[in-house]
Amino acid sequence: MRILGVDPGLNATGYGVIEAEGGALSMITAGVVRPPARQALGLRLRILHEALTQVLSSQRPALMVLEALYTHHDYLTTATLMAHARGIVCLAGAQHGVPIVEYFPTHVKKAVTGHGTASKDQVARMVGVWLAMETSTLASDTTDALALAV
Amino acid sequence: MRILGVDPGLNATGYGVIEAEGGALSMITAGVVRPPARQALGLRLRILHEALTQVLSSQRPALMVLEALYTHHDYLTTATLMAHARGIVCLAGAQHGVPIVEYFPTHVKKAVTGHGTASKDQVARMVGVWLAMETSTLASDTTDALALAV
Repeated sequence: MRILGVDPGLNATGYGVIEAEGGALSMITAGVVRPPARQALGLRLRILHEALTQVLSSQRPALMVLEALYTHHDYLTTATLMAHARGIVCLAGAQHGVPIVEYFPTHVKKAVTGHGTASKDQVARMVGVWLAMETSTLASDTTDALALAV
Repeated sequence: MRILGVDPGLNATGYGVIEAEGGALSMITAGVVRPPARQALGLRLRILHEALTQVLSSQRPALMVLEALYTHHDYLTTATLMAHARGIVCLAGAQHGVPIVEYFPTHVKKAVTGHGTASKDQVARMVGVWLAMETSTLASDTTDALALAV
C-alpha cells in the first residue's frame, strides 16, 4: 500500500511517499516544495498545486495523511497562511480521489518514536529507523511528512 | 472592464461579476457556492474549485477582488477553515492568470456606503444603488462579493 504524508506550509510543504508491504516500510520518494516568497499568493499556491498534482499523478497513493487541524500557532496570520496551503493539499487529494486521513501531531510522534512530545530530531531519527534509511540530510518538513506516512 | 469579487468561506463562498464601462457599473452574474457540509473537506474544496473555475472560464474577468487578510474571527478554527477556501479562490484566479487585488473590509464599506462601519444591510442596499438593481433577495455572501467588485 502506497501512502503519501504531507506537511503543508506556504513557504515549505514537505511530502513523503512510502510503500507498506507486510510489516516492511520503505521510502519511495520525498521532498519539499518551496514556492518563491516574492511571488503573489495565488502563484505560490499554483506552484504548490502543480507540484502536488505531479506527485499524486506519478505515485498514485492509496491514502494521504495530514496533521489534524489544531491551534498550534501563536499567530493567527501564520495559521491562516498555512491553511491556504493546506486547502490546496486537500483539493489536490480530492482531485485524485485519494482519501485523506488526519492525525494529531502527538499521536504521530507517539506512534513513530514512542513519545508524544518527541523533538523534530528524534522524529527524524526514528523515521530513518522505520524506513531503514539515512534521514540526517533531509529537511524537517520532509521528515515530518514521512513520519505522517509511517 | 469585468471584475470578479469573491467572499470566501467553506460553508458559503459568495461571488459577483460586474462590468465597469465609463462611470457605469452593472451586474453580470452573482451567486453563492455552498459545498454540502456532510462531505469531506477535500471534496468540499473540490466543489468550490470547480464552481470558481466555471465562473472564471465563462466570465473571463480582468481582475479578482478579495478581502485582505485580517484577524476578524474570534475563533482560530473559523479563520483556518475560511483560509482553506480562500486558498482555493486564489489558486483558481492564478490558474486563469487573473490578478488579485485585496482591500480591507472597512475600505470596501467606506467606498460603497461612505462609512467604514456600515452594516451588511447598508452595504447590500448601496450595492443595489451602484448597480441599479434590487439586492434585497440576495444572500449577504453575494452582496459582500458584489461590494468588493464595486
